[in-house]
Order: sequence, then C-alpha cells, then structure tokens
Amino acid sequence: MSTHFIGIDLGGTKIATGIVNSKDELLATVKVPTQAEDGWEIITRRMGDTIAEVMQKSGVQANDVRAIGVCSPGALDIPNGIVLRSPNLKWYNIPLKKIIEERFNIPTYFDNDANVAGLGENRYGAGIGSKHMLYMTVSTGIGGGIITDGKIYHGATFGAGEIGHITVDKNGPLCGCGNHGCIEAIASGPAIARNAKERLKEHPESLLNDYSNITAREVSEAAQAGDQYAKDVIETAARNIGLVLAGLINTLNPDCVVVGGGVSHMGELLFKPMIAEVKERTINPFLQNLKILPAKLGGDVGVMGAIALAQSEGKV
Amino acid sequence: MSTHFIGIDLGGTKIATGIVNSKDELLATVKVPTQAEDGWEIITRRMGDTIAEVMQKSGVQANDVRAIGVCSPGALDIPNGIVLRSPNLKWYNIPLKKIIEERFNIPTYFDNDANVAGLGENRYGAGIGSKHMLYMTVSTGIGGGIITDGKIYHGATFGAGEIGHITVDKNGPLCGCGNHGCIEAIASGPAIARNAKERLKEHPESLLNDYSNITAREVSEAAQAGDQYAKDVIETAARNIGLVLAGLINTLNPDCVVVGGGVSHMGELLFKPMIAEVKERTINPFLQNLKILPAKLGGDVGVMGAIALAQSEGKV
Repeated sequence: MSTHFIGIDLGGTKIATGIVNSKDELLATVKVPTQAEDGWEIITRRMGDTIAEVMQKSGVQANDVRAIGVCSPGALDIPNGIVLRSPNLKWYNIPLKKIIEERFNIPTYFDNDANVAGLGENRYGAGIGSKHMLYMTVSTGIGGGIITDGKIYHGATFGAGEIGHITVDKNGPLCGCGNHGCIEAIASGPAIARNAKERLKEHPESLLNDYSNITAREVSEAAQAGDQYAKDVIETAARNIGLVLAGLINTLNPDCVVVGGGVSHMGELLFKPMIAEVKERTINPFLQNLKILPAKLGGDVGVMGAIALAQSEGKV
Repeated sequence: MSTHFIGIDLGGTKIATGIVNSKDELLATVKVPTQAEDGWEIITRRMGDTIAEVMQKSGVQANDVRAIGVCSPGALDIPNGIVLRSPNLKWYNIPLKKIIEERFNIPTYFDNDANVAGLGENRYGAGIGSKHMLYMTVSTGIGGGIITDGKIYHGATFGAGEIGHITVDKNGPLCGCGNHGCIEAIASGPAIARNAKERLKEHPESLLNDYSNITAREVSEAAQAGDQYAKDVIETAARNIGLVLAGLINTLNPDCVVVGGGVSHMGELLFKPMIAEVKERTINPFLQNLKILPAKLGGDVGVMGAIALAQSEGKV
C-alpha cells in the first residue's frame, strides 16, 4: 500500500517540495526558483520536476505515494484544483490539479495559502495536538484557516476563513475588498506602516523619522529599540487583532489559536497586547485550556502544510 | 430496529415533547406547564411522563425509540447531560440525561437552546437543505448555532456559537458578560428598548411617548405604525446585527443564515437594513446562493430541534 505523501508550495518566487513517509518523517526537500516570467506551461512542468526529484532523492516510486498536496496563491477553484486568477504569476484558469495528476497518476489535492498554513501548523507546527485550531496569518493581508479534527473547515463554497474582512471599525479605512474598517485595513503589515506614517509628524521624537521608507519592519525595529510611538502603533494593531480573535473564539471555541505571517515576528510587542485584548473580550470558560501561540514553521509552512493537506485529504 | 425519535424542550414555563417516525412525520405532541416551583425531582418525573405519553398516543414502544433529544436552558455540561446552573428553574448540577436514560433505557442527547433551535430550523424549518447553516437568535439575549452537514459544530469544549458576545463597538455599552460593546448589549430586545428610551426626550413627536412601559415589542409596534424614531432605533440594531453576520459569513462561508428569536418577528423592519449591511460587508462570492431567512418554527423550535438532535446524534 502506498504510504508516502508529497507536498508542493507554489509561490511567486520559489517552488518548495517535500516528501514524508508514513511516520511523518521528512525524507527529502527541493527548492527551485519559480521564475514567474516563464509562464504556466514551463512552471507546471518545473513543479512536476520537483516532485520527480524528491521521489528520486528519497528512493520512493510513484506507486508508493498516496497523495500530493498543492498550496497555491491566487483565487482558486479548490475542489477542481484550478487557479482561477493569480495576478503575480499571470495565471488565469490553469487546471493545476489535472496537470499534476496526468503526469504522475497520483491523487492531487489543492488549497490556498492560509488554509494550508493552518493545516501545516496543526500537524507539524505550533498547533500539534489541537483538535479545534484557528490559524490567523498577519502579513500583507490578513487571512485564516479553521482546522477541525485535522481537516480544513471549508464552508459551503470553499471560502471559509476569510477573517481579514471582519469589520472592526465600521467607519474605518477603506479596505481592498471595498468594505470599510476590515481588520486587514487596520492591522496588516501595510496598514501598520500607514498608521505609523499618518501621525508621525506629531512625533518628532520618534526613531521612525530617521527612515526614508517605512514598512511594518521599520515600525517593529523602532519599537524593539524602545521607540514609544512605534510601540503604540503596534499595540493599537495588536488590540484590534485581539478583538477579532475574541469574536472568533466566542464563535468557534477553539482549543488553540496560532498566529503566523510576517507581522507575527514582532513577537511580544504584538502578542502581549493582542492576548490582553482577547482575555478582555472572550467568554471566560473559553479561555481555560486555550493556547494562543506564534506560528512555528516559518518559511517551511507552505510545503509542510501541502504535505499535511495530502495526508488529510488523501487518507483512505 | 428502532426507528422513532423523541424530543423534549424544557422551558421555564412549559415542557413540550414530540415523537417522529422514520419519515420525519410528527406522530404526537404533548405540552404541560413546567411549574418550576415544584423542584427538579417532580419536574424531571413530569418530563418523563410526557415521554411516556407521546409513546402511548402514537402507539410506539420504548424499544422502537432510537434516541431522545433534550433541549435545556441554563449553563450545561453538554456531553454529560448535566444542567450545571439554571437560575430560572433553580436547578444546580442536575444529571438530566442520566435520569431520563435510567427511566427509559433509551440513549439520550442533550444540548442548549440556540444549538437545538439551529438544528431544528435546519431539519424542519427555514434551513431545510442547507449543508452549512448559521443560526442566530435575537431575543432577551443573542445566541447562535453552527450547523454543518446536519450536525451541531461544538468546538473544543462544547461552547461554539456564542455569537452574542462578538464586539461591535469597542467602547460600547457594558454587556452582562463583563465586556463592552457586545452585539447582545447593542441589539438584543432589552438593548433595543434601552436605546429607544435613551433618546426619547429628543423625540417628543414619537408614538413611544404614549407608552408607560417600553420593551422591544412597543418599539416594533410604533415602527409598524410609521413612527420614524422607532424605525431608526430598529435600523441601528439591524445594521449592527448585519455587521456581525457579515463577519460570520466571511469566517464560515455558510449557504444559509436563519435568524430567529422574538426580535426577528419585527420582519422587514429588521431584515431589510440587516441584509443591506450584510451585503456591504461580506466578500462578494460568498453572497452568491446565500439565503438569509427568518426562522420558521416559532414556538415549536425547541421540540422540533430536540427531535432533530436525537436524530443527528442517535444515528447509528
């Protein structure tokens, strides 16, 4: 019986592929540049080549592989495995699942970044052992994944987890989605940078005045160096994230919340006020035994999540 | 093989019990007053008597009944079927599931009002056919139930669905839970009445000045009679409910939202602005094929939901 699982993380800059055996041991990984400018035919062949390579490196035959998981960016048709639109890759209606299945004749499953990252953290990262996990990623955007009993909760049309578009401030800033005051428009990386710049004039003492270009990274650096204004900007974002998490915890009653994405690397600067806000706004019994943790897998989350996807969907 | 299911709705004023056959046909119902002052021993015996009575009325033997579902108020230990605290009934740590199972030797399942109501609407009411349903009840409090593939989504400690304590306005009015600005503190029946009274002095033209006692019912009556101030109060509550629903739809991606509870009887006065707000704040693809409907079962929701609970949990 086939007992191995392969995961591929397709990103705008790199393709990362890995293979595990039945004991969840990672046998081989391969990373290659995506070279988006090559177009979908070459890139999908390149993805296939990485699959062939991890099998070869680990001495595993195609018929020993039970399933392949693919983590893809862009707007997806998840059940059919089609990349509907990925502006970064300039892909439109690419039947990625079919292409891979035809080459290897191995069942292939497909999901978006945030869901796959949640699944990866659940099986291999901060959320190991959690049966009801909520994953939130805070980066250029804010997204999420609901992982229940080791599976992604997909909802009616495979869209569940769009927690970046929960309204926090009904009269707040315009979001890319067209709504006002979404948490993504208030606490994502770009929003943190914008918030920092907006009132910087009122804070001539702030270290942020020394930077020519301010992104969330510079705000974090200044805060780490003790800058009070930068700390306040981060605390405001963190409290708003905490408010959203509290609502989600009241709704879903998870046993574990994992927060990942670039902004989560701010560490305690972010987590301390965020958790304080969660505690203020969550129904008390739900806080007992609830863990709120930073993501663990870092840059490997896509490939480990894609492997976990193959494992959770490919189980017979 | 046993093919019938019984449901009991235990309320502060009445006990309602019903039995269905394998075709979901309601064969008999019984309603008796709870008489809360009698205490738990007499009331639990009374509940058992209604079970015996629906079996007798429908000519069904105990070994033809596969499962019993119980809908209970108060704070519950759901898996163990214990009423931890019901101040209305003055019940503390009453092992209701055990009492009923010992008398009838039929597997008995147990859940709270909002979850059971959601399940009832899903199987017998407005949400028939929905695979991913969100139920919200707006009444003295605001609560909810998440129904996925015909089952209640319980979360880690059987608490999921506490959507009344999602924050809408971080500096808003104090809620019974200790948090500020929960939707329950802003748009429940008592909150609507309080909001109406708060600014009534500024509206000498309002019909509400004619009432000596203002509850949500009077606000609704005045609005139905064309009173603009009363309409505005309801619209504000409805828009806040819509904002919360939008966040939940973005999170859960349901195919159907059912809104019940006393306040939902306001009809279009409530639903029109509520749905308008949902549309403004929900990610577009999630609105396609999404139904937002008023609950259908009215006063029967508890007993039909309890039957649906027996059916969903008691399936072999």
